[in-house]
Formats: sequence, C-alpha cells, structure tokens
Amino acid sequence: MPSSDTLRVDARSHGRPVAPSRSPWRPLGLDEVTLTGGFWGDLQQLNASTMITHVEGWLERLGWTGNFDAAVEGRLPLSRQGREFSDSEIYKLLEAMAWEVGRTGDADLDRRLRALAARVAAAQEPDGYIGTMFGRPGQRPRWSDLEWGHELYCIGHLIQAGVARARTFGDDEIVRVAVRAADHVCDVFGADGPQQGVCGHPEIEVALVELSRVTGERRYLDQARLFVERRGHGLLGEIDFGPAYFQDDVPVREATVLAGHAVRALYLAAAAVDLAVEDGDDELLGAVAGQVRTTLARRTYLTGGMGAHHEGESFGADFELPPDRSYSETCAGIASVMVNHRLLLQTGAALHADAVERALYNVVATSPAQDGKAFYYTNPLHQRTPGREVAADEVSPRAASSLRAPFFAVSCCPTNVTRTVASLAAYVASVDDSGVQLHQYAPATIRTELGGGRAVELEVSTAYPHDGRVVVRAVQAPADGWTLTLRVPSWAHGAQVTTGDGTTTDAAPGYVAVAGPAQGTHVVLDLPVAARWTWADPRVDAVRGQVAVERGPLVMALESVDLGTDVAHAVVTTQAPPVERDGQVLVPVARRPLPDVSWPFGPQRAASPAVTDLVPLVPYHAWAERGPSTMRVWLPVE
Amino acid sequence: MPSSDTLRVDARSHGRPVAPSRSPWRPLGLDEVTLTGGFWGDLQQLNASTMITHVEGWLERLGWTGNFDAAVEGRLPLSRQGREFSDSEIYKLLEAMAWEVGRTGDADLDRRLRALAARVAAAQEPDGYIGTMFGRPGQRPRWSDLEWGHELYCIGHLIQAGVARARTFGDDEIVRVAVRAADHVCDVFGADGPQQGVCGHPEIEVALVELSRVTGERRYLDQARLFVERRGHGLLGEIDFGPAYFQDDVPVREATVLAGHAVRALYLAAAAVDLAVEDGDDELLGAVAGQVRTTLARRTYLTGGMGAHHEGESFGADFELPPDRSYSETCAGIASVMVNHRLLLQTGAALHADAVERALYNVVATSPAQDGKAFYYTNPLHQRTPGREVAADEVSPRAASSLRAPFFAVSCCPTNVTRTVASLAAYVASVDDSGVQLHQYAPATIRTELGGGRAVELEVSTAYPHDGRVVVRAVQAPADGWTLTLRVPSWAHGAQVTTGDGTTTDAAPGYVAVAGPAQGTHVVLDLPVAARWTWADPRVDAVRGQVAVERGPLVMALESVDLGTDVAHAVVTTQAPPVERDGQVLVPVARRPLPDVSWPFGPQRAASPAVTDLVPLVPYHAWAERGPSTMRVWLPVE
Repeated sequence: MPSSDTLRVDARSHGRPVAPSRSPWRPLGLDEVTLTGGFWGDLQQLNASTMITHVEGWLERLGWTGNFDAAVEGRLPLSRQGREFSDSEIYKLLEAMAWEVGRTGDADLDRRLRALAARVAAAQEPDGYIGTMFGRPGQRPRWSDLEWGHELYCIGHLIQAGVARARTFGDDEIVRVAVRAADHVCDVFGADGPQQGVCGHPEIEVALVELSRVTGERRYLDQARLFVERRGHGLLGEIDFGPAYFQDDVPVREATVLAGHAVRALYLAAAAVDLAVEDGDDELLGAVAGQVRTTLARRTYLTGGMGAHHEGESFGADFELPPDRSYSETCAGIASVMVNHRLLLQTGAALHADAVERALYNVVATSPAQDGKAFYYTNPLHQRTPGREVAADEVSPRAASSLRAPFFAVSCCPTNVTRTVASLAAYVASVDDSGVQLHQYAPATIRTELGGGRAVELEVSTAYPHDGRVVVRAVQAPADGWTLTLRVPSWAHGAQVTTGDGTTTDAAPGYVAVAGPAQGTHVVLDLPVAARWTWADPRVDAVRGQVAVERGPLVMALESVDLGTDVAHAVVTTQAPPVERDGQVLVPVARRPLPDVSWPFGPQRAASPAVTDLVPLVPYHAWAERGPSTMRVWLPVE
Repeated sequence: MPSSDTLRVDARSHGRPVAPSRSPWRPLGLDEVTLTGGFWGDLQQLNASTMITHVEGWLERLGWTGNFDAAVEGRLPLSRQGREFSDSEIYKLLEAMAWEVGRTGDADLDRRLRALAARVAAAQEPDGYIGTMFGRPGQRPRWSDLEWGHELYCIGHLIQAGVARARTFGDDEIVRVAVRAADHVCDVFGADGPQQGVCGHPEIEVALVELSRVTGERRYLDQARLFVERRGHGLLGEIDFGPAYFQDDVPVREATVLAGHAVRALYLAAAAVDLAVEDGDDELLGAVAGQVRTTLARRTYLTGGMGAHHEGESFGADFELPPDRSYSETCAGIASVMVNHRLLLQTGAALHADAVERALYNVVATSPAQDGKAFYYTNPLHQRTPGREVAADEVSPRAASSLRAPFFAVSCCPTNVTRTVASLAAYVASVDDSGVQLHQYAPATIRTELGGGRAVELEVSTAYPHDGRVVVRAVQAPADGWTLTLRVPSWAHGAQVTTGDGTTTDAAPGYVAVAGPAQGTHVVLDLPVAARWTWADPRVDAVRGQVAVERGPLVMALESVDLGTDVAHAVVTTQAPPVERDGQVLVPVARRPLPDVSWPFGPQRAASPAVTDLVPLVPYHAWAERGPSTMRVWLPVE
C-alpha cells in the first residue's frame, strides 16, 4: 500500500478535478484551460480576492479550524466548536486553496495552505484516523454514529483536498495526511475490517476513487466499491427521515431516479460513475445515467437546482417543484455539476453540459453576493416575504434561510462554492484524439494535445452570456486537420456557425462538429441569447398559469424593488416576446391590486383593472443585491 | 389549594368540553345535545364500536400503557417504549373514554376507563409529578429538556382527561391524579417556583384554565397566565427550527398571525382565548381573534386544514398553500376546531363556525378509515404517487406519510380523533338567555334552558350534508317566545328559512335569527348544497389555473381509480356547473396524454387532443378507501 514514503503522484493529471482513466472525451485541467475574464473569470477573481479569505477568516473565528489545535493540545471535547461535520469545511477550504494555488501560483496563498495543512496534519492520530468529534475521552467512540457522525464524510473531503494538492502541486503534507487517512479507512472498513458499514453522508466514495486515480492504488478503488455496493441494504440505523434520506433503501444500481437528501444522492451518483468507469461496469454507469436523466426530466428546477423539500433537504416526487419552497441547496447545485460533468465525459450527451451550465449560472453563481462576503444556502425561485439584512458579523442560525449570510451554523455551501469556483476552468472543454470539444463559453485560452501529441492552442473570445457570439481562434493547430466540437444549448434554436471561409451553417441544439480552424484562423458560433418566455410541463403544477423568462442560459427574476410593489401583485402578458433595451430585459407587467379577503376560496372573481407597463427583470443570480425584496421567477400570466 | 380531600367539581358543566365562565353564547354539553344519527352520529358509533378499542389495543401492544406499570415496578428506563410524549396518548384515550362514558353510560367502557386510570394513578410520585420519561435513575432529570421533553404537555393532556371525567362523572381517581399533578406543576413553575420556564409544546396552559373552571381554583388560572405570558421571550433553548417553531419568538399578545408548528400555535391560541375570557383581558382576546382571522384568510387550506410545511410541521408564509405538500396534520385540524369554537362563543362571528365545519368534515373526518382501524396523520390535497397498503399490524414509521395507518411511531392523531369524535355534540349548538343558536347541522336532540329556567327541547332532522334541508322541531318551547338563530355557511348563497306559518325568507350567509317555533311546530332551513366550482385567491400560487369542487361543506376530490389513469393527466372544463346524478358529483374531465420529456421547461407546446367525459368525484374525506390511488382536490382547468 502507498505510504508517505512511497507516494507516487500522477503528474499527468494537469490539475484536473476529475480524471477518469478512460473516457471518450478527456477532461482538461487547470494548467490546460485558463479563464481570461468574463462572467466566470470575474467570479474567480472575486474568489481569489475575497471569498477564500472570507471563508478562511470565518472558520478561524468560529473555532472550527481551532478544533484541530484543540485536538493536539488535548482540549477536546471541551473546547470543540461547530457541528459534527465542521472538519470538512477546513478540508474544502484546503481544496479551494489547492486549486487556486494551482491556477495562479499565488505564493501567499500557498503559504497559508501549508500552514493550515500543518495544523490539520498535527491532529492526525498515529493510526491515520483524523477527526475532532469522536474517539477521545468524553467523546463518543469512533464510528459509533455512522448515521449522523459524518466521520467518513469529513475524511472524504480531506482526501479531495489531498487529491487537489497532488494534481496541482505533487507530493505534499496534506496529500500524505489524506493517504494515511485513506489507508486507515481501508483497514477499518475493508472487506475483512472490523467495520462493515457505510457513512450516512456519501463523499468518501468519490474521494477514494480519485485518490486511486492519483496514486494508482487499487485498494482505494476497492474500498469505494465496497462502500457503494454495501449501500442500499439497510445497513444504517433507523432515522426519522427513513432510509431513503441517505440512499440506504435501494442499491444504487437498482434505483431509477435520484431520491432522498439531494447532496447525498448526487455525491453517491458521482462516485458510482467514477467507479463504473474505472471498473468497466457499464451496468452501473447505465443505471446512474438513467437516474440522472430522469432527475433532469422530472426533479430539477428551471435554475438547474435540485431538492424540492426543506424536510430532509431532499428531492420531492416527480414534477413536485414548488418555487416558493424550493430548497435547491447550493451544494446540490455543485453536486449536480460534478455528476453531470462526469456523465458528459462518458456519454457525450449535451443535456449533461446543459445541466452543468444551468446550475453554474443559476445556482452556483447565485450563492455568493456580489461582494463575495455572503452566500445563499437555499435558492428559492419565489420569495414571498422580504428577507432581512444579515449583519456582516452574524452567523445565520438557519442554514435554510433564504438570505445570503456571511456564514451559517451549517456552512457547507460557502466552502463548496470556493472550491468549485477555483476549479471552474475544468468544465470549459475536453479533448479526444481528433479534436477539442467546447462545452461552456467563456473568455479562455486552451492549450492541450490531441492524438499523436499534436499541440493545439485556442483562444476563446466572447461576451457570453450577455452576447451570443463566441469566437474560437486557433493560435496553434495541427497542420493535418482536427475537429472542433461546439455545444449548442437546448434552448438555442437558430444557432449558426461561421467557419474561416465565411460559410455560415445552422446548428441544431446538441453538439455540432466542424473542421477545426487552421492556425491563425477562427470559427464563430452565434447563439440566440435573446430573452424568451419559458413554460413548464403541465405536471409541474406549482407553476401552472405562470411563465418564466430566460435569456441565454440565465434565468431571470422579477423583484419588488423594480416592480414598486410586492411581486404578488404582478401579472404579465405574453403576446409579444420580452423586450431588450439598454442591456435590460423588460416584460409587460400589470400591477393588479389584491384586496384583503376573509376566506381566500370561493366563486370566480372578475379581475380588477390594472395598468400595464414594462418592468425590468434581473438575472436570478443577481437578485436581492439591492436590499430586502420579494421576488419571483415564475410570473402569473393574464 | 384543592386536594383529593377537598375536591369540588362543578356539576353545572353538563359535560361541556369547553366551559367559559362568561360568553355571549353559552356552549352546550354532552348531556344537552345528543347526536341521533347522520354523518357525525355514525362516526360517533364507529368511535364507540371500533376506534377507541383500536387505539386502546395499540397503546397496550406497543407498551406505551405498560410504561406506567414499568414505572411502578421499577423497570424504567430499561423497559420504556415509545417517544417522549407517549404518556399523552394514554391520557387522550382516557379523555375519549370519559366523553364516551358520559355520552352513553357504557358500563364496560367505564370499567376499562377506571382500570386504565388506576394504572396511571399508581405511577404518580408522592409529590404529584407524573411521567415515565424523566427523573428516575438512568433518565434525565425532570424538566431538564423543556424544549423537547413534553413533560408539561403530557400533564396537560392528563388534566384534560381529568376535566372530561369531572364534567361527565364528577370526582374520580383520574380527576384527583390530575389535580395533584396540576398542584405539583404550580409548585414547581409558579411565580416563586424553582422553574421559570415553559413547555416546548403548549397544552398545559389550556388544560390549567379548564381545571380552574372545573374546580373553581384560581391558582391554576394564574399558572396558565404565567405560562402564556412567559412565552415569546426566548426562554426556551435554541433549536434548529428556531424559536418560532414553539412560539417563543414573539409574545402571543403581540403576534399578528399564527406561525410555527401548527398544533403548538393553535393549542396556545386556545389557551390564550380561555385565559382572556376568565380574566376579562380583551386585549389578549382581540389579539388572538385577529391572529385567527388572518390565519383563516391566508394560511388555511380549502379543507380547513392548517400547516403547509412538513419541516417543523408548521404554518407557511401567507398564501403559501401547496396542495401536494400540505402537511395539514389531523391534530392541527382538531386544534383549529378547538380555537374557532372558543372564538365563536365569544364573538358570534360565523366565520369561526364555518371554520369548525370545514375542518370537521374535511380534516377530522378524513383521518379515520371507514372501518375505524387506520388514520391519516397528514392530509395532503394532492397525492402524486399511489400510496401503498399499510398492513393491519404495521406501525407506520413516518408520521408524515400520506397513508392511513393503524398507528404511528408518533401517534398523536388517532387518540386526538377519538376524544374529538366522542365530544362532537358540543359543537352543534349554543344558548343565550333568549334562545338557541344552531351552528352545525346534524340529526340531534337538544335539551337546555334559556334565561329564567325556561326549558327548550329541539329535534333537528336532516340528511345534511347530503341534502340541504334542516328541520328544527320544537318538542318543548317557552310559551313566551324565544329566538332560534341559524348559521348560514359562507358558501350558501340562496339559503332560505321557512317558519311554521309557511313564510319563506331569504337568508344571507352569516347568522339569521327567527322567531323560535312554538311547541310542536318547526322551522325549515334550506341550504343550497349543490356542487359548485371553487376558485382560489390569485395569491395562492400553487393552485393557479386550477379549480376545486365543493358540495355543501364537503370538499371533493378526483381519484385515479375513477379517472382510469393518473390524475396528472386530468383537465376539467368549467363552462357548466358540476353535474349531480344518482348521488354522485361528476365533472367534465379530459384525459390529456403527457409524453415523456427530457427537460420539462421550454416554449409553449400545443395541447394534445383529448376526449372529455364525465368523471365522478369523491368527498375528500372518503378518498383512498378503494386501494392505492393518486388524487387531487385542485383540478387543472382547460
């Protein structure tokens, strides 16, 4: 088995967050794709300048980082701060730092990463166990609460931090800590180990597969398989939410749709894809792909958000997607990106890249405030009562509040956002032997190799999503020809591709493959991003008689600050398309007075007269940036 | 203070579940009103023949009753069964038995009541404390978990059992147990007591006011006031749901609408009304009346059900009333009946009697299966996936399941139904010095006295709600004239009253007062119960573009067993009123095929062709009596 003495790190990963050993489309890493500006580049800058530091400061201030020092100094459990999963936030921050250092080489951040890693490393027990919540005198024994204890979950995030560091730097302290912890997990939970359970919150599984990819160690893969295959047989103890909450009701290869706690279901699905890929388990891959397709068809919000129930933070029934009570946890959006990216690489199905784009723009980007110092945990599509301002030094006690808050008592989302944003470049493109596939459109440079070591360097220029034109210029390209594959989003009816010779052809939604531009030339993709009305399938009863507005990949929202009154009073007319004017999207809205009633049900009432005028919408990701407001994505239709 | 030696019981209560010392309209008790058949009489029969015995058997089988024996025999905590509030189920059963024995004089039931009371009594500690969950070696100390421990809640239900027995029988063992427990609570939680907290679950408050009424003891009233006034100041510890969950965020007299856990909010409101009445605290009474009016206007389902959130079993925001995710706990329906009945007696406002009727027919009556051996805990208005049959010997682990189950791990509803149904007669009528007010229409005899001891006996004959005709015959009536006041439900536009001389007059919704019929004559009320379309206020977004059908006070529902396919495919047309034929209500329904989609949002699609025919609806209270089914109350409109 690997140890700190023999550790080999796969240097070929190029800083890839996901590195399957086989895939029709090979992912590109952070040293192959650089975001050079635009929507995502700017968010990465905000992450670098503010979000990572913000999270780092809060973890310190709340004492969650200090738990590791307390462990070393024998001050646990008395001095312990935070919930049972607080260790994981430090690990996710370490992962974010690792991607960020890998992306930019920031020396100061690298120093902070090493210092933080050293504090974590100091708390590792001689046998490799690490965790501040269990196992000391006065604490419950290790592994005594697999249902809620989150011990393996935390170690999973530690391993992901190690994987990120290994892929962006190489062998390092946090990598060795992760390997020792993984070895310990295998000792304890292996086929012959004393523990034969699984963790209530999947995460260790996906982490172990990646660690196996990084180190080449089969043992981690085997352990991941044990965890995945054990699950669904009722090994976990009874909880109020029932076994579906943590996907212990049905084996993952037998499920037909994602269910239960959304983040748990999605992390498990990501692990199952990775496992299936490494082992050539096409049955498992097919099962998860089917579950995700059904989930996209029936259990996903317009925003790409997942999880309809506050109770159990879980998926609802098919088509049960209430906008005012959507949970749509930020972490579930991130987890959907993880799963769909993995399936995209394996299947080449555009709907997975569409899902990644939708969740990135409308869930992940919605969470952080424009100043990078507050985050959404839940992402409802309808806010009935104005939120309140959360003070800059206030911990929101309710993770599920629909307020951006500096931090939460359950604060999984801010750290998850930082690690995701730092590694965003990985979602832009992939390659195969014959060419490059562009999945997400952002100003970027792409440097990679096709089959036969043929170098290609592309420069992507675009103001997407504001503008629909994407220019892909070949700075360097193989002389013997290559293929450029471009994603046309599902909504982009009327897209066109113009090649270097000026030929323009229509491109239907899905992927369009064109001759790769010769060195020094370019290809232009024109996507029709004009604002459009979007309707829901009749089975989404909660938004019947309502319409949404989308512009390109952006879901739009109406806010009371623009309407001048509560959005409950708004009714739109849809005879004409939404108006675009001066960079704004406007829709004809009547403000219909709604009188007080003593009982809200009875004979049909005539609509009261109303004045209609054009009211601007905001991108959903930017809502609530101008003070407390009511908001709705789905607008009642006259 | 009262003790078992000096206990005086107010024999003037006539078996009244609620006996305010002052009210414009005085309630009638179980020895004044007898249900003689019909919808409610039949349900009382089922309660007597089956439901009470069913509950009694399950409490024994699960060992919750046995907890009291285990306490006596020193087998706690090892032998303890059930959740922290399981004692309350035995007390609610005792209350049901007391009303039932009071109603019928059933000697066998009286014997069982006494035997059960004796087992409870044996577990009472010398200082009056009673409870099987706290205070013994190996258990947590008494009152150490006011947030979740339910100790005072349980004692509240014990007191209610004592009150019921006192009012239907007089001094008896369970009455003395209740008094001793109440004295202990006053000792511990009084103004100078060692504990200055409140219970996480209100119930002790309303119980103490009633015990004060029964015994004439001011001390219990004072204690109830202390509990009510302490609440809302953050005395309870922090919980994940936040302080609003148990109404500890704002004092009850400052709240503007009911919020948080619905049952808790309603039990507290009932106590506040009682307290306000006894102390002449019109500010408090006005506050609660306003809260309830706003709750009826904005936070109540068409069925009269309350509580929109599964999470926290709580009220949602104004007009947030999702039919597919309605919690609408049976106990909240019962608690709404309690509160609205109290407010009706004080205010004479018909909307409170309307609310009682709505909740009785569409929530309380929905809970029990037609065989009396299974119960709903939650009462959703839209069932998206067919339920499954719950075996006759299966405890449903999920209280919130939308299945009628023989019993639940959290099983507050079945016992609550039994005590409510046994005391239903109390909601039918009230009196004042000059006459009788009829609030609910059921075959019944009413024997009471008006001012000056003038006896009146009425016989109410009706097939309501099937038929709208109600005949009120005066078997005995004061010779000097009296007033009969009849409620016309809010939906009953076109109601008419025909007096003994054949004169027919129109009666608008609200209360209509007519000359009381002379002895031997009658008055006829005709209510237009024909099926009608009911629409929701536009702010109830979740049912936009949908319509419900009501017939008289009954909410109707469409079931897949009648439609022949999933109700997701149903679309109705509303040009003509619903059809009534052979005792059935039918509506024109198109079955619109809904193809699979890969993404459920996009451009507007043309509706697929559909065949329309008449499909029968069932009363909502009778749904799911023919096997697993999908169901919806709110029907999409073409």
